[in-house]
Amino acid sequence: MSGLEWIVDAHGCSPDRLRDRAALQAVFARMIEELGLHPCGDAQWHQFAPEGGITGVSVLSESHLACHSFPEHGTLCLNLFCCAPRADWDFERQLARLVGAQRVFIRRLERRYQDPAMSTALVSDAAAGAAGE
Amino acid sequence: MSGLEWIVDAHGCSPDRLRDRAALQAVFARMIEELGLHPCGDAQWHQFAPEGGITGVSVLSESHLACHSFPEHGTLCLNLFCCAPRADWDFERQLARLVGAQRVFIRRLERRYQDPAMSTALVSDAAAGAAGE
Repeated sequence: MSGLEWIVDAHGCSPDRLRDRAALQAVFARMIEELGLHPCGDAQWHQFAPEGGITGVSVLSESHLACHSFPEHGTLCLNLFCCAPRADWDFERQLARLVGAQRVFIRRLERRYQDPAMSTALVSDAAAGAAGE
Repeated sequence: MSGLEWIVDAHGCSPDRLRDRAALQAVFARMIEELGLHPCGDAQWHQFAPEGGITGVSVLSESHLACHSFPEHGTLCLNLFCCAPRADWDFERQLARLVGAQRVFIRRLERRYQDPAMSTALVSDAAAGAAGE
């Protein structure tokens, strides 16, 4: 049995949206809705200084979702760990729409929690330019 | 500028310790102390059924720390994301001591939040057998 983790670094994002907790909460909400995820309680949010980056973490029945924004660099870093495999989300299109991302780099890691021989397998290492909309 | 994320899957752990929130809190506490991490508030913990797996997430000044335990498989999955590089923790030895891990697989990913050209670099992909103590 194995899980999947998406490690996503989105560049060229709108610094204003990366400073806006509501914009990042909207990213979580969209992922939760479209991927059929199940949060265990409220997400935890922390903003570093009034205009600084924001961190959010959400415990899911499926494992967890985390984000870190770096408005000074226009970057949003996301992790989604699902203990059961599921279809990819369209990170490129959605992050272009939600936070203005121009380039979205996606790594998808297998996390095999039963068979250690397979645990380090890197499933894919994809980089794609997000088409702005 | 870049951060580092450690993705650690520890196998052959004690199922009893993986069901014990205090044991997992001790893993977080040890990492926080020895790596000089700074939690932003309390970690969030969730246990799936009375004897089930446990998820913990902690927002850090350095980014975040997360764990998921699978007592039915003897596996503990950890993520540590630090927005600034730092020395490795001795995951093998510490997880052997704290949760009885027999095999610890470590992937260390660069998360470059400034230079997108480097964002997908896989820094290392190491597997090491943890020496039981």
